[in-house]
Amino acid sequence: MQPVFTAGSWSTADSTTPSFHAWNPSTGEPLDERYPISTSVELDRVASAALDASAALADIGPADVGSFLGRVADHLDAEREPIARMAHLETGLPLSPRLAEVEFDRMVGQLRQAAAAAVDVGGTSWRRPIVDEATGIRSDRGPLGGAVLTIGPNNFPLAFHAVAGGDFAAAIAAGNPVIAKGHPLHPGTGLLLAQCVGVALAESDLPPATVQYFHHCNPADGFDLVRHPAVAAVGFTGGRATGLGIKQVADEAGTPAYLEMSSVNPVFASIDTDPSEVEALAEAWAGSITLGGGQFCTKPGLLVVVGEKTAEDLGIAVETKLVASAPGLLLSERGQSEFVEGIESFEAAGARRRCGGRAVGPGWRAEPTLLEVDHETAKRRWSTLSQEIFGPVGILVRVDSMAAAVDLARSLEGQLTATVWSSSGGTVDWGPLVDVLRPRCGRLLERKMPTGVAVVPSMVHGGPYPSTGHPGFTSVGLPASIERFSVPRCWDGVSEVLLPAWLR
Amino acid sequence: MQPVFTAGSWSTADSTTPSFHAWNPSTGEPLDERYPISTSVELDRVASAALDASAALADIGPADVGSFLGRVADHLDAEREPIARMAHLETGLPLSPRLAEVEFDRMVGQLRQAAAAAVDVGGTSWRRPIVDEATGIRSDRGPLGGAVLTIGPNNFPLAFHAVAGGDFAAAIAAGNPVIAKGHPLHPGTGLLLAQCVGVALAESDLPPATVQYFHHCNPADGFDLVRHPAVAAVGFTGGRATGLGIKQVADEAGTPAYLEMSSVNPVFASIDTDPSEVEALAEAWAGSITLGGGQFCTKPGLLVVVGEKTAEDLGIAVETKLVASAPGLLLSERGQSEFVEGIESFEAAGARRRCGGRAVGPGWRAEPTLLEVDHETAKRRWSTLSQEIFGPVGILVRVDSMAAAVDLARSLEGQLTATVWSSSGGTVDWGPLVDVLRPRCGRLLERKMPTGVAVVPSMVHGGPYPSTGHPGFTSVGLPASIERFSVPRCWDGVSEVLLPAWLR
Repeated sequence: MQPVFTAGSWSTADSTTPSFHAWNPSTGEPLDERYPISTSVELDRVASAALDASAALADIGPADVGSFLGRVADHLDAEREPIARMAHLETGLPLSPRLAEVEFDRMVGQLRQAAAAAVDVGGTSWRRPIVDEATGIRSDRGPLGGAVLTIGPNNFPLAFHAVAGGDFAAAIAAGNPVIAKGHPLHPGTGLLLAQCVGVALAESDLPPATVQYFHHCNPADGFDLVRHPAVAAVGFTGGRATGLGIKQVADEAGTPAYLEMSSVNPVFASIDTDPSEVEALAEAWAGSITLGGGQFCTKPGLLVVVGEKTAEDLGIAVETKLVASAPGLLLSERGQSEFVEGIESFEAAGARRRCGGRAVGPGWRAEPTLLEVDHETAKRRWSTLSQEIFGPVGILVRVDSMAAAVDLARSLEGQLTATVWSSSGGTVDWGPLVDVLRPRCGRLLERKMPTGVAVVPSMVHGGPYPSTGHPGFTSVGLPASIERFSVPRCWDGVSEVLLPAWLR
Repeated sequence: MQPVFTAGSWSTADSTTPSFHAWNPSTGEPLDERYPISTSVELDRVASAALDASAALADIGPADVGSFLGRVADHLDAEREPIARMAHLETGLPLSPRLAEVEFDRMVGQLRQAAAAAVDVGGTSWRRPIVDEATGIRSDRGPLGGAVLTIGPNNFPLAFHAVAGGDFAAAIAAGNPVIAKGHPLHPGTGLLLAQCVGVALAESDLPPATVQYFHHCNPADGFDLVRHPAVAAVGFTGGRATGLGIKQVADEAGTPAYLEMSSVNPVFASIDTDPSEVEALAEAWAGSITLGGGQFCTKPGLLVVVGEKTAEDLGIAVETKLVASAPGLLLSERGQSEFVEGIESFEAAGARRRCGGRAVGPGWRAEPTLLEVDHETAKRRWSTLSQEIFGPVGILVRVDSMAAAVDLARSLEGQLTATVWSSSGGTVDWGPLVDVLRPRCGRLLERKMPTGVAVVPSMVHGGPYPSTGHPGFTSVGLPASIERFSVPRCWDGVSEVLLPAWLR
């Protein structure tokens, strides 16, 4: 049985502890290693240790925090190849460049950006120091006074991983201890990541329970951890049902939960000039909805096309591309069955399946799928047809006017992204649609697919409910992502000796 | 029957509409005017109008928003005397300087600061514009895409008023329409404020439903408004029970609610040198707990004193002052009975009443009251004895060591403020206690009572749950208070014509 990392040391559960194993999505076969499902007793111990670490971190300076984050990145870099291979084995996501380069670089890049943010005590840093000499009132932002519970998704085993990804980096940078829950679909990856973090922690002067890692738990025990007084915030990326379950428990406890849950990421297209633009859009959209097996949270699953002719040409072009594409490899057997059920529910709601739709082997694959629906049906069944289906599928909605597109947009739920796409040099006036889309999404794009999420300060990976649990934050892009795990603190007439260095 | 201000005009309910009236707390007599209790049909109409205003505001520039806020301040200033007199009549709070100068200046000062913030599009403004030329990814903060429902408290009829106070100013500055619910204890004040706002609105180019005002509603209808899709956020200051009720409904709807609810604002004192400091502390604390009838949200209701001798001397000094003080005038009959019940519950938990404790007349007055308790009893009954009692009362807790003070501090709920107080030039090491208090309060003070809340950028009027509903924000201090009512927006590859001016 593989160990967990709690209160500064690795410990192995006894053989009576319930356990689980991972799978190889490419073959559908189980993998050998067994990982413990942590008990409520263990999670209670983890929470207590985190609370102690939180108190001890109050006396640790930014330099130690920053150097720890930098060391984590270095140790991960040194293990890049085995980690990427394990992630590939457990998730079926392409090894190279996706895991070994793109996502790995993003993971270590985030950690290094967070390291830089941790030591930044300047006026424009996330700490936002203000010294008001006239009143003697100072303020800054600081840690939460408890642990951040991080819970990562199935689809980004590195960059969003609970123990080394963006939430981890942001929470540590702000001076909080982290309790990281692994994802049951890639426990071997999590173990390798946590080992690197453990080595960096042992080399640092941080409290031993600054980071703790366990592989899995029963939902009820997980909810108890969410409501534990030692947990001051939750960072979660995953499915809507789980996210809403966490939200309810966290809300009742008065604990902020930052949840990235679901999004269909609508694209609105109107191509009024060069018809070759139809081909460019078809290429971009077909590529974007099949990328990573169509399992990106920013997959643009819904394409609303203005104009019969464009919709006709686009449908043919996309169908041609999807039919010629290899099946998408999905992360789990459940993902595969939910994919098929999702398509069935769309067909039941009146969508026409133009291609794909079937689960295929070996392992857990799915045919690239194009659905299509007319405006009238879309409008009538919008609450179904505007939902996210995880996997390589998109739905094309044909509307005959911009007014009809605007009308559909008004009924959209909160989204991570929304995109408008017209011919370059065209005359389409997107103003009225953008007015409707702007408050309904975190990121608005033009002539660009949303699947790429650059880790830059101007990124917003967030959006209105229910794409996330709170519209005011981003989970990607430093230093802004740190805001979730820091709070404003006012120091009113407080002596220098009691102030943090940057407020003296 | 007095009118309500909806969708840009004043309308009077018919005589079948349920109504209420205000009271004069000084006499306990009812006041003449009648105000409607708005029906759910009316609130639905208000919500729809607000949603339209929200869309229309997208095309309004910062200059128009800023000039509207400035005009509101000007019109209020012109009506200063009648407004302050009405607020005095309805709340019993002192006319001068409290209402006519201090609170009035704060209200118009906030509006003018918000006006300045509204037009500030610079790099350090609340809009936080970022232009990343290399990637073409820009970001800023903008309005919510729906209305802000503001609900003000009973104890600050001007500066925290729903239709002219801090939440109103912050929500409008960010470009949101406001639905303001008046407080049933000062409807005449609210009407005068709303009339000034209405005049300023008519002079502006803002949509007519940018601000709407109603006097009162049934709780169930109010909750329906909170969960209405047109309401994008709630700003509330008031009691904990009401706040938690709003929180539950808002949480279920996925709507952010910024709630300032309750706080006992603990003070920790250790005086190891000059005994005349005991007198200074007694003066400051007795003054602070009786200010405004002891009805400040930042009233320091709990004083933990380290050292038997100090506690003894302090108790005598405070008792002497309170016995010599006039009874405090409370805002309502209910407030008076809750005051008496609160003191009874503290006595039942083992606190000793040294003076005061009774309701007296004329009107709704309460004797300045000192309670005292030993460490052992405090520890055993902490969850009762560390609660807030609204009114002129404080409890003095005697502990014999700093370790005991730290121990009590660990069990405190989230607070708006916490204060440490020692002799100037003393040798008390507050470090360990400050480590415990810092994450448990929004504002930490030293040798200063917390009742004054300066409206400066470095202020934090916020704190961990349950002092507020979310620890990451402040409701006082611009531009930070605007963050609650704005969201981050990313513009990825978007054409200049679709960008706000400050991102071009």
